[in-house]
Amino acid sequence: MTELGKRIRMNRILDPVTKTTIIIPMDHAVEGYFEQLEDPRKLIQSLVDAGVNGFLMRRGLAKFSSLQFAGRVGFIYRITSATSLRNKVTDQSFVTTVEEAIRLGADAVAATVFVGSEDEKEDLRMFGLIADECDKWGIPLLGEMMPIGTKDAVPFDGPYSYEDVRIAVRVGCEEGADMIKTYYTGDPESFKKIVRYSTVPVTIAGGPKIRNVIDILKMVKEVMNSGAVGICMGRKIWTYENPPALVRALLKIMVDKASVEEARIELST
Amino acid sequence: MTELGKRIRMNRILDPVTKTTIIIPMDHAVEGYFEQLEDPRKLIQSLVDAGVNGFLMRRGLAKFSSLQFAGRVGFIYRITSATSLRNKVTDQSFVTTVEEAIRLGADAVAATVFVGSEDEKEDLRMFGLIADECDKWGIPLLGEMMPIGTKDAVPFDGPYSYEDVRIAVRVGCEEGADMIKTYYTGDPESFKKIVRYSTVPVTIAGGPKIRNVIDILKMVKEVMNSGAVGICMGRKIWTYENPPALVRALLKIMVDKASVEEARIELST
Amino acid sequence: MTELGKRIRMNRILDPVTKTTIIIPMDHAVEGYFEQLEDPRKLIQSLVDAGVNGFLMRRGLAKFSSLQFAGRVGFIYRITSATSLRNKVTDQSFVTTVEEAIRLGADAVAATVFVGSEDEKEDLRMFGLIADECDKWGIPLLGEMMPIGTKDAVPFDGPYSYEDVRIAVRVGCEEGADMIKTYYTGDPESFKKIVRYSTVPVTIAGGPKIRNVIDILKMVKEVMNSGAVGICMGRKIWTYENPPALVRALLKIMVDKASVEEARIELST
Amino acid sequence: MTELGKRIRMNRILDPVTKTTIIIPMDHAVEGYFEQLEDPRKLIQSLVDAGVNGFLMRRGLAKFSSLQFAGRVGFIYRITSATSLRNKVTDQSFVTTVEEAIRLGADAVAATVFVGSEDEKEDLRMFGLIADECDKWGIPLLGEMMPIGTKDAVPFDGPYSYEDVRIAVRVGCEEGADMIKTYYTGDPESFKKIVRYSTVPVTIAGGPKIRNVIDILKMVKEVMNSGAVGICMGRKIWTYENPPALVRALLKIMVDKASVEEARIELST
Amino acid sequence: MTELGKRIRMNRILDPVTKTTIIIPMDHAVEGYFEQLEDPRKLIQSLVDAGVNGFLMRRGLAKFSSLQFAGRVGFIYRITSATSLRNKVTDQSFVTTVEEAIRLGADAVAATVFVGSEDEKEDLRMFGLIADECDKWGIPLLGEMMPIGTKDAVPFDGPYSYEDVRIAVRVGCEEGADMIKTYYTGDPESFKKIVRYSTVPVTIAGGPKIRNVIDILKMVKEVMNSGAVGICMGRKIWTYENPPALVRALLKIMVDKASVEEARIELST
Repeated sequence: MTELGKRIRMNRILDPVTKTTIIIPMDHAVEGYFEQLEDPRKLIQSLVDAGVNGFLMRRGLAKFSSLQFAGRVGFIYRITSATSLRNKVTDQSFVTTVEEAIRLGADAVAATVFVGSEDEKEDLRMFGLIADECDKWGIPLLGEMMPIGTKDAVPFDGPYSYEDVRIAVRVGCEEGADMIKTYYTGDPESFKKIVRYSTVPVTIAGGPKIRNVIDILKMVKEVMNSGAVGICMGRKIWTYENPPALVRALLKIMVDKASVEEARIELST
Repeated sequence: MTELGKRIRMNRILDPVTKTTIIIPMDHAVEGYFEQLEDPRKLIQSLVDAGVNGFLMRRGLAKFSSLQFAGRVGFIYRITSATSLRNKVTDQSFVTTVEEAIRLGADAVAATVFVGSEDEKEDLRMFGLIADECDKWGIPLLGEMMPIGTKDAVPFDGPYSYEDVRIAVRVGCEEGADMIKTYYTGDPESFKKIVRYSTVPVTIAGGPKIRNVIDILKMVKEVMNSGAVGICMGRKIWTYENPPALVRALLKIMVDKASVEEARIELST
Repeated sequence: MTELGKRIRMNRILDPVTKTTIIIPMDHAVEGYFEQLEDPRKLIQSLVDAGVNGFLMRRGLAKFSSLQFAGRVGFIYRITSATSLRNKVTDQSFVTTVEEAIRLGADAVAATVFVGSEDEKEDLRMFGLIADECDKWGIPLLGEMMPIGTKDAVPFDGPYSYEDVRIAVRVGCEEGADMIKTYYTGDPESFKKIVRYSTVPVTIAGGPKIRNVIDILKMVKEVMNSGAVGICMGRKIWTYENPPALVRALLKIMVDKASVEEARIELST
Repeated sequence: MTELGKRIRMNRILDPVTKTTIIIPMDHAVEGYFEQLEDPRKLIQSLVDAGVNGFLMRRGLAKFSSLQFAGRVGFIYRITSATSLRNKVTDQSFVTTVEEAIRLGADAVAATVFVGSEDEKEDLRMFGLIADECDKWGIPLLGEMMPIGTKDAVPFDGPYSYEDVRIAVRVGCEEGADMIKTYYTGDPESFKKIVRYSTVPVTIAGGPKIRNVIDILKMVKEVMNSGAVGICMGRKIWTYENPPALVRALLKIMVDKASVEEARIELST
Repeated sequence: MTELGKRIRMNRILDPVTKTTIIIPMDHAVEGYFEQLEDPRKLIQSLVDAGVNGFLMRRGLAKFSSLQFAGRVGFIYRITSATSLRNKVTDQSFVTTVEEAIRLGADAVAATVFVGSEDEKEDLRMFGLIADECDKWGIPLLGEMMPIGTKDAVPFDGPYSYEDVRIAVRVGCEEGADMIKTYYTGDPESFKKIVRYSTVPVTIAGGPKIRNVIDILKMVKEVMNSGAVGICMGRKIWTYENPPALVRALLKIMVDKASVEEARIELST
């Protein structure tokens, strides 16, 4: 991450001083109904005020809510899509281009690849060509790298073998990602190995299984101890009863290196 | 290999004086976990110092380790990919472009084609279009030409019929490769026939079967006697206990035309 | 064939005075091992000296043997490919572009289409797009038009119905070929009908069945009497014991309109 | 001159066996009335039959007379122009492109540069950009390099200082010409120095002053002895009473290395 | 100089270990007759062997002498030109493109700008557009930045005011140069100020005035002490009686930080 364009844009989604990031995905509306996404402008405003580093959005919501976030925090433009009506999440379609990302003022693009899927040949090609364009235009590529696992139909139902996640993450690095988003393996020891095998910064997705907010704090504490730079976590945050408070608690852990006990105080502020 | 751009770049990966080359592939991280690839910067530096001619890398590791090799040895940019999670090595995806290779400062691009596979129609087309671009921009194309063999699922488990390898190699020549990488057939007589049927310089891959370092030296001695220009050999070299020593021993054989006995002295230096 | 670029280039592969052509395909090395193609430079030189009009080659051999033919006879660049390892000759891949043909200095491009195959939709589109480019750049397109026949797996095992060949040839004409190569039907009466139905000059391929050199002369005599302009015949010529003598005998028939008896004298010169 | 496209095309205008060339410019009709250019088709046919290597023409005459020369001899496409109505020959306009040359089937393009003129800055740029395109497409560039001399208005009224011609010629070489056309200096000693300072083959223009056909033969004899590869001479040849005879006499000198006395015999055949 | 393409190429013309460079310009043949440039292939070979880092050439000489330098040392492609026949050195024409530099395999491009000239508006625009292309393709730009001075007609007749040189150098930096070539001011104190004001590495041109080889060594010693990274010096080196010896003496000073007394010993080797 050294040339000027990539550095400027990367610094907008990954704090260059604290080396941490909280990115809030709000790209889920193609995957189902979420009341929080109906008109999320107040939510977005509150998350900006709470100190998030950026949002991961499709162009629709980004245009709709631009007054709330534009120029204040980073904007990561999602360029792959798969709907709940099709209901085959591994069939990610590359629905837009890096040139559109530039026109939209995005600071980065994000693509999901299910490594090991039957369509891998096509998917890797699309991912690589997007990476070419990102290098050409100086815009970072966030690779959401997921192992297809042995359970093809239900990829979100891990835990995954950490070896599979490790390969998937490195595939992203090798084929052009500037930052990685992947699933937390559930234990810091194995995740450390994944972070070490990555040649670029790693963030974690929210993942499917945790229901208790304290467990989220614990998970993020572990993840940061593993060497990751942060989180790219949407539903876990904006379905919580007080999203800005959760963000503040997470920042305590991530930026101030607070303990979970110290951080949870923020939840009641 | 006569026009200026191709000549300059080719001379950076194939020594124009000795007519030999040692290229070190380090593109395996998409195919599994290798501790040597976790942070190979010291390894790369030691191989540069030992006298290798170039590295075959994907863009991720190339960016990560640029301080160690940039401008000192050749950089061959791999443009095809297939992961161990998919585990179908013949499904090589063309993941990037010659224009990206230029932006990255590569001296050559490398593409793998499994000749005879079900996807041959598509794969040959992709290979040929890359060759067009290489001719347009004056950058050499290293064709990794492998016969699909009769055992589709396990193409790395030869030995192959030398007749199949011979055709596969010539397919690379005819459709635009400027240098060939293929498997050694295991005996110098048959490999001589392959080299003779090639219209461009031939190098060998490490291949799967040899475990003893002396056998590697013997193999390379045979290969050079067959008329090949060198080796494109990664794991056999960097999983050895002392990679620079092995490179120096190989250079003894390749450049100084030493015997295996003479060369093995380098292993203990 | 009136615009300047097409006329100039066509005249280099089809003699404008005698209205005949002998084109020597040497594009077979992807289809098997031929000792004559191992290093055909002397062979090529001898064929140039004997008076052939051009060679049909892929880029590999063309680059390898350029000193022997460059600028002395025509160069027809083959842009489709199918290997013997895949062993499905009807799966022709369009492996290169008209722009590459220009860079290589080719006088024409040649594409094979198996008319009626399962991939016809894709193949005709590729053929037509190449024809578009040929019209744009003023470079002739040699269409190798073959009816798929009823025996899909063994297309070279004619005789074909001449009605099928006639349609296949006209498909080439209609979709953009400037010259046709097809199989001889085996009798001059039916072939006359094919030539009459073609709107562009017709040449014949060597075909698989004749083993006697006199039979080759007889076939070519018949073919010329049918109104064809010549032959595009490789293996029959360069596997003969004295290729230049055979070319001279064929020129006797084609240019001097000699009888087979008169022409065969050349074979012993 | 080694890559395939340039080699093929160059060999069509410079005989690769004899290393000589007779190119006949017929591009003068923008500079005045010449009765020989009114309908030069018979003249062109007779020159083709006499053995010239190529014609230097604008596109108008090339289209008009294509039946006479197309595909039989080389076609060098003139891409600069200056009319006699403007009457400032140094104001050469770049009137067409290399892409048009390809469409027209040209084997080379020719551009005139008056080195040292007031417009040098613009002219060198145009020349260099044409050279870029020639390298891109594999088509040779014939540079007509003329020193502007001290007498700006009458540049054809030499003799020139050979030092000036030498620089002008080398400017052509350095900025991308593949072959040079320039004025003969009038003595073989100085011209040898010019040829030696050129990095590409040199031909001479007819020049303005000789009126006797024997003097033409003498001049060409001297020029060939100086190391030049041939002549690019129009009016001197086609205003002579028997142009094909003059071409045959010149070929005697150039190809057979005949003396002027031996060659003049051809004039009366 | 951090992105991969620029780093790789820059390291080929500026040694990344010693942080020094000796670049030999041989682009003068458009400016006059130099016997050393008539056929400089042996000279080039001897300079390669002596350890220079690269040559600054136009495409003509680069093609002519490619066997001597290709792939062994850096190749900086000159993209501006002005001839001695025009004799207005400040009228530099941008004669070629970055895309051509890529086709030719160049490691960098070099453009001369006379800052403050009447054509500054056009020249800066051309320089900037070239810099744009260099950033796009990852190829360094060597800016030869010269103040126009007060004596327009004789710009090589300094000494210049160091303040003018300082501005000119910084203009190069600001408008896109990755390395600077300028004239030495003649004293290390003023040159230090110039180097300090430059944001990229600085090299010096040979300049017109020194005639004694010891004075060259002294000048280079001073220049290195001023913080410059090296020299871009042609005539001073290749018109010396023993060019490789001079290069070795200069390397003593530049790489080994030898004194002039120590270095001059190399002159007699």
